[in-house]
Amino acid sequence: MADIEEKKTFEVCFSPVMFPFFKKENAIVVIVDILRATTAMCTAFENGAVKIIPVAKVEDTYQYKASGFKIAGERDGIVIPGADFGNSPFNFTRENVHGQSIVITTTNGTQAIEMAKDCQQVIIGSFLNIDAVFNYLKSQKKPVTMLCAGWKNKFNMEDSLLAGALATMFSSIPEYDLKCDSAIASMDLWNLAKDDLVGYIQKASHRERLRRLGLDDVIEYCFTMNTSRVIPALDHDILIDISKK
Amino acid sequence: MADIEEKKTFEVCFSPVMFPFFKKENAIVVIVDILRATTAMCTAFENGAVKIIPVAKVEDTYQYKASGFKIAGERDGIVIPGADFGNSPFNFTRENVHGQSIVITTTNGTQAIEMAKDCQQVIIGSFLNIDAVFNYLKSQKKPVTMLCAGWKNKFNMEDSLLAGALATMFSSIPEYDLKCDSAIASMDLWNLAKDDLVGYIQKASHRERLRRLGLDDVIEYCFTMNTSRVIPALDHDILIDISKK
Repeated sequence: MADIEEKKTFEVCFSPVMFPFFKKENAIVVIVDILRATTAMCTAFENGAVKIIPVAKVEDTYQYKASGFKIAGERDGIVIPGADFGNSPFNFTRENVHGQSIVITTTNGTQAIEMAKDCQQVIIGSFLNIDAVFNYLKSQKKPVTMLCAGWKNKFNMEDSLLAGALATMFSSIPEYDLKCDSAIASMDLWNLAKDDLVGYIQKASHRERLRRLGLDDVIEYCFTMNTSRVIPALDHDILIDISKK
Repeated sequence: MADIEEKKTFEVCFSPVMFPFFKKENAIVVIVDILRATTAMCTAFENGAVKIIPVAKVEDTYQYKASGFKIAGERDGIVIPGADFGNSPFNFTRENVHGQSIVITTTNGTQAIEMAKDCQQVIIGSFLNIDAVFNYLKSQKKPVTMLCAGWKNKFNMEDSLLAGALATMFSSIPEYDLKCDSAIASMDLWNLAKDDLVGYIQKASHRERLRRLGLDDVIEYCFTMNTSRVIPALDHDILIDISKK
């Protein structure tokens, strides 16, 4: 059938500011913010969080705080006043999140979720749950858009590498069209990086920034594949784990 | 001195829509639209054009036409009504352009020029004049931003490869900081592509689009390095060749 039906697109968007040019209402959008928002969200669900409420503005967390939610948030690597903890995945321990609803605000990730929420579905991708995301997307038979959160609307390496890894998985599925130049570029970068992911990312500026902020302890964790089967997905502006359904 | 002075940045912007996040007033911006605007502009100066007036809108060409300028313009690969020729570099022959002032309007390239014109300087890069551009930039000792015209605000491969080639040349100059992730990515892509540039670009969607429009004859020409020493630069909204100064 694949040769007579129109193929479904698999596209990679390197920055939220480019997303309007990629937007397809029938596409599933995978939000990627490896360092660290989407890795942290996967960790939270893996450790038993019930739901995650992503909010864009720091001010929006105050009302939730007053209602008893746990707040995770930082700006430019600094924990915001009133938050229970910051956005390091290591904060989302079983002790901190099991059975809880968590409000999370981040520099890049929340903004990306916001932009995509009118599409078919929004799910959260990281290296931790890459196979689970791949299998879910494959089962849905919809166009796929990888939305890299990037770094302040610039391209970043770590998000593009995850996009490239997923693109490579999709490249063997004949029903998908991967002719998007950014998908091709990200597959080539993934191919260069995959045998030494942490070594490769050491070249990227974001790592240097994290080191300055004393946060480079998460690198190895964030680039470890398939430690989780969770599939965080947006449901009426709230993230839930749909792998449990 | 380089270790005590602040290093100058060399950055790569993959799409005009990302440019506001890269904009530096003291930077020289290199506009890149390999297929085909910036290649055509270099060809025009190489063949003796006196000046090139880039205009964004088709309507803006009419007044110039009435004043006797030659008009080069197309939209989505189709020559616009009233134009003397389209944007293929092969149209900018000595016979067509020598001693002439040319008005040019393109889908992507003109828009990129417009966005950058408040910066220190805007110059035009292509594979044809890559060494001339490198030597000029090196002599100016300013921050450099590569502005890839892309394809309708998406990343494209051919512009990123030129950016990667120039980034690689700058990577051996200690006064420059190439820590921008997109500079690193484009250098890695250039390294993969450089030994078979035309073969590599065959993977990119833009080539397929050109083939559909019957325009793929220009590929080999557009990827041939150092056939020209021109340095087109913006001077009061008009492009002139500053290599002649």
